[in-house]
Amino acid sequence: MATPIVTFLSDFGHEDWFVGVVHGVVHDVAPEAHVVDLNHLVPPGNIARGAFLLEAAAPDFAPGTIHLAVVDPGVGTDRRAIAVRARGQYFVGPDNGLLEWALASPDAEVHALTETRWFRQPTSRTFHGRDVFAPVAGALVRGTPLAELGPRIADPVRLPVASPAIEGDALVGRVMFIDRFGNALTNLSVAALERAFGANVDHAALHLTLLDRSVTGLSRSYGDSPVGALVAIMGSSGRIEVAQVGGDAAVRLGIGEGDPVSVRLLPPGAGH
Amino acid sequence: MATPIVTFLSDFGHEDWFVGVVHGVVHDVAPEAHVVDLNHLVPPGNIARGAFLLEAAAPDFAPGTIHLAVVDPGVGTDRRAIAVRARGQYFVGPDNGLLEWALASPDAEVHALTETRWFRQPTSRTFHGRDVFAPVAGALVRGTPLAELGPRIADPVRLPVASPAIEGDALVGRVMFIDRFGNALTNLSVAALERAFGANVDHAALHLTLLDRSVTGLSRSYGDSPVGALVAIMGSSGRIEVAQVGGDAAVRLGIGEGDPVSVRLLPPGAGH
Amino acid sequence: MATPIVTFLSDFGHEDWFVGVVHGVVHDVAPEAHVVDLNHLVPPGNIARGAFLLEAAAPDFAPGTIHLAVVDPGVGTDRRAIAVRARGQYFVGPDNGLLEWALASPDAEVHALTETRWFRQPTSRTFHGRDVFAPVAGALVRGTPLAELGPRIADPVRLPVASPAIEGDALVGRVMFIDRFGNALTNLSVAALERAFGANVDHAALHLTLLDRSVTGLSRSYGDSPVGALVAIMGSSGRIEVAQVGGDAAVRLGIGEGDPVSVRLLPPGAGH
Repeated sequence: MATPIVTFLSDFGHEDWFVGVVHGVVHDVAPEAHVVDLNHLVPPGNIARGAFLLEAAAPDFAPGTIHLAVVDPGVGTDRRAIAVRARGQYFVGPDNGLLEWALASPDAEVHALTETRWFRQPTSRTFHGRDVFAPVAGALVRGTPLAELGPRIADPVRLPVASPAIEGDALVGRVMFIDRFGNALTNLSVAALERAFGANVDHAALHLTLLDRSVTGLSRSYGDSPVGALVAIMGSSGRIEVAQVGGDAAVRLGIGEGDPVSVRLLPPGAGH
Repeated sequence: MATPIVTFLSDFGHEDWFVGVVHGVVHDVAPEAHVVDLNHLVPPGNIARGAFLLEAAAPDFAPGTIHLAVVDPGVGTDRRAIAVRARGQYFVGPDNGLLEWALASPDAEVHALTETRWFRQPTSRTFHGRDVFAPVAGALVRGTPLAELGPRIADPVRLPVASPAIEGDALVGRVMFIDRFGNALTNLSVAALERAFGANVDHAALHLTLLDRSVTGLSRSYGDSPVGALVAIMGSSGRIEVAQVGGDAAVRLGIGEGDPVSVRLLPPGAGH
Repeated sequence: MATPIVTFLSDFGHEDWFVGVVHGVVHDVAPEAHVVDLNHLVPPGNIARGAFLLEAAAPDFAPGTIHLAVVDPGVGTDRRAIAVRARGQYFVGPDNGLLEWALASPDAEVHALTETRWFRQPTSRTFHGRDVFAPVAGALVRGTPLAELGPRIADPVRLPVASPAIEGDALVGRVMFIDRFGNALTNLSVAALERAFGANVDHAALHLTLLDRSVTGLSRSYGDSPVGALVAIMGSSGRIEVAQVGGDAAVRLGIGEGDPVSVRLLPPGAGH
């Protein structure tokens, strides 16, 4: 079997040397490791954004993948460090909600990182990405069992996640992320739609409202409608996106993250 | 022989998780692959810019290199996906002109990617970088023959390329790219100069005009003239660049992409 | 033993294809090489900034690491190219002061890169990152002795480095770098503090002044004080940083690079 990938997500940016150093430490511990940068532009300290990006990206990686995530405003305080096995993958990071997607899984096994022999020595109190999380990720690459990293815990810090809610006949979610193309990614997932409208919901009958605009039916791709058209689409990570064909929907409509998006199911035969 | 490199160029930017996911998929299919990021800051949907960057960079890579390129505004429509063997390398991407440099080669062998067994399953209609192009690039790393990816085609979509033209006694090209140092890279290539002025053209006798400025002779390096001087130079990718020694030529002169640049050959003994 | 890492620092930015091409060349020469990007956002031609970043990052890498550094405004002139062995690591780059941290080591062994057989052919005069430094870094990965690269030299170009100075009862340094979190990294290193105040200086008695603000005592982490507090901290690279808990100290105080920072030692029992 191939060496598992270590993905790496942080709020370090690219202006300094922190990302490179973490790569170096993982490689020192596990020379066979293959580190893939996921995102380092999480706004400083924005745990919720980091958690969203990790949730969006992780399902695309193979079983056994090790996700190293460092958005850690509490570094050096008494916040715990954890490793989680969940959904067939591993997650390493601070115990501050960043790993919420892993923690939300019924099969999550969470260990506190208390065995300091896995840490880089001396261990700083300001850069646990380098001194704690990177060497532990390397240890996981080498096959170290979770139990050797520290005791199992039952009370990891959870992140309050805004799930779509039923309001009257509508499912109401919100915009989670504006991507580089100006597409507005929502938290209206396939699973949420099925819970609200049933497993075989007709995508053509979904009526979506965002700000003062509405769209009927989910398009199959960005390019199926005329340039300039506003479309809703089931995106590649299984969430409804609102996009403008050949344009930037977020700029065009003034969409911002957090904006509410509602979906109703049109009755059969309803006009558009 | 060493494993070939997979280069990766896209318009994905670095704000999300798309680049990392593509790395992951290539690694899943071909764990021995070595993926090198070429550029992910192509303006969204700007096929011509992607094609220019690929043309500029590809010749610096070894024979057998696999270039994975995704600037794909038509993803999910009926635009084809292709793989090309040309100039001793491989190219994988959408059939929209992005791979023009490969297609322009007389030895180009173009195959449509129709054999879906190489694709990631399920195959989305919105992220073929992940689901089509990355796994096919991985298959090429593993040595899969082009013929197994789909049928050979003779009518790939070509990109109209603005080549330098002879106008009177001048060769007229244009600025293609402003680099980070403010150097203005033109499409006045060694080959174009030779076609216009002969194979042994005297670089010292070339007289270049850009906006209201002119430069006589090609300098051998950025640092051979006094700080502040405007110089023309044969750049590292074989195209004339206009640069300011120790400064930013584009800012200083207000040069923009698309600006015309003309070159004439001074008669022997002509004053400067 | 594992293959050494090649770190790569430059002023190339991410807008073009230069970084990717250098990766490709190192891989061509030494397919087993593992290239880690350190930083490519050094302001164009800013040798001092490159030297600072290299000094800050290099100690975090393992013995045997090869540091490839290219901030090279004099490329193509008669400035020399060098390789240095120092502090158990290797450094490759232009002879313009960029490698100052290596050169400042008493054990530094410096060789001029004159043996052109290691260069990429043909060798341009404008892109030595690709044609000189990358292939030489690859040769070092392969175990090539320094002596085969060119003769040892005794007069490499040194970078004037502003070290902290004693002024009356204060040690005066300056802000070297503002990181993404708004922390102001100074050149007040552990070593400088020990030289000024003795080896067992009491961190709680250090009184730091920056612009019109002062802080008494070094905190142990960013999170030990209330949100909004200004703290001084011994950073992860062994230099005092000034930070705002949960905020951006540089923005809050208007701190800029080059600002002076002074430290005095409070007498025992002194009030704060």
